[in-house]
Amino acid sequence: MRILLTNDDGIFAEGLCALYDNLSLEHKVFVVAPEAERSAVGHAITISEPLRIKKVKRGRKFFGYAVNGTPADCVKIAIHELIGPHIDLVVSGINRGANVGINVLYSGTVSAATEGVILGFPSIAVSLNAYHDPDYCFASYFVNSLLEKWRAIFNELSFCLNVNVPALPAHKIKGIKWVPQSISPLLERFERRIDPHGHLYYWQCGERFTEENPDTDVKALEQGFITLTPLFFDLTYKEILPALKEKSLFFDL
Amino acid sequence: MRILLTNDDGIFAEGLCALYDNLSLEHKVFVVAPEAERSAVGHAITISEPLRIKKVKRGRKFFGYAVNGTPADCVKIAIHELIGPHIDLVVSGINRGANVGINVLYSGTVSAATEGVILGFPSIAVSLNAYHDPDYCFASYFVNSLLEKWRAIFNELSFCLNVNVPALPAHKIKGIKWVPQSISPLLERFERRIDPHGHLYYWQCGERFTEENPDTDVKALEQGFITLTPLFFDLTYKEILPALKEKSLFFDL
Repeated sequence: MRILLTNDDGIFAEGLCALYDNLSLEHKVFVVAPEAERSAVGHAITISEPLRIKKVKRGRKFFGYAVNGTPADCVKIAIHELIGPHIDLVVSGINRGANVGINVLYSGTVSAATEGVILGFPSIAVSLNAYHDPDYCFASYFVNSLLEKWRAIFNELSFCLNVNVPALPAHKIKGIKWVPQSISPLLERFERRIDPHGHLYYWQCGERFTEENPDTDVKALEQGFITLTPLFFDLTYKEILPALKEKSLFFDL
Repeated sequence: MRILLTNDDGIFAEGLCALYDNLSLEHKVFVVAPEAERSAVGHAITISEPLRIKKVKRGRKFFGYAVNGTPADCVKIAIHELIGPHIDLVVSGINRGANVGINVLYSGTVSAATEGVILGFPSIAVSLNAYHDPDYCFASYFVNSLLEKWRAIFNELSFCLNVNVPALPAHKIKGIKWVPQSISPLLERFERRIDPHGHLYYWQCGERFTEENPDTDVKALEQGFITLTPLFFDLTYKEILPALKEKSLFFDL
């Protein structure tokens, strides 16, 4: 397969390199990723400033293109300008830290994969549930196996497959679960600090999820499962639209 | 009502001020908005840098709080730190330019309203389909009337109501339509330019929508209707999840 690989941790991130090394054993992998970390940028795109591209080497060998933009920018410019539309799959990751629940909305990793789907390509976002000393070895292996064994599925993928892998040794992972995105609140707070010049500033901190349902991405991941969630980019609240249409719209314009 | 007003064009934007003037005739309006334009930032939040708040005056009177962050940041810090949770509604806008179709994913205006819903508040995003010499007069009046007449509806709103208003004189507007978000592709391209130092750069340009179905936000707005679209923040592709669950997951971990 011809795979476009991107992320939101930046082109030099360990998670991307680990995935590259594994995927490129069997596939042609094109790397187009942000030149620096762009975490929590959601589905931002760059329209008020120009984009610039740098060729990046790893050792003495060409590795990929670094973009001064967001993950979604990377996918767009890769398809429209750098690689062209002849790719079979977009893969985004491996992200340092899980992307489950409400956090998928803030995630640059997931948004890059969603952008792939918008542009018409099967896409996968991959995240590892570890912030400290992450070991991407098993997660990379898992993605490669996933591609190998489920090619029949991926050929018909018209959605973004959001994959989250627990930070556990392989033998301790409980299994694989298809689950919906949790929509339970994320407890969060702002920490107030005073800078050396006496001025107040705030740090935004996501604390923890409130989800208790084991049949959701948040809880299943916490319990030690690899979670697989199909995501799509239609935000319409379809369940409620028919009822709203029926409400009379008497209104003087 | 106690209304939190924000936007993505920045606290000094004409569209926000027009809406403030209209809404504050009958409601208590709290303004917390980005200190400068933050268009197309999607659902980005600021976690790697601190947030700072400035009190802003309009004339000699306190107007609101300017935040050095994104629209979603503004809603979060407003609720958690500046205004508190005792508000009845979040309103985001009026945006300069429509937010329909795929563009709702990139929109800071819509994301601010979505953030309101995540935090548990009824929320409305309002956009005017004009970039040049926008006249926010009718759109502001419309939102105010909407709140007045549909209070019964809004009290049960558990979604983001995405409102788009055509840039037409009131008597030329064809009516109001409840429609889903269009998911048709947006034609886009990158314009290559060379800077004065001889280096290549790119401008990202959204060209036009390909949507032809009149029962979508994109087409109904184009045809002169005010469009109303309920949006939600669950990205799960629910229609496909049961089928995926049924697929066997034989997999050696």
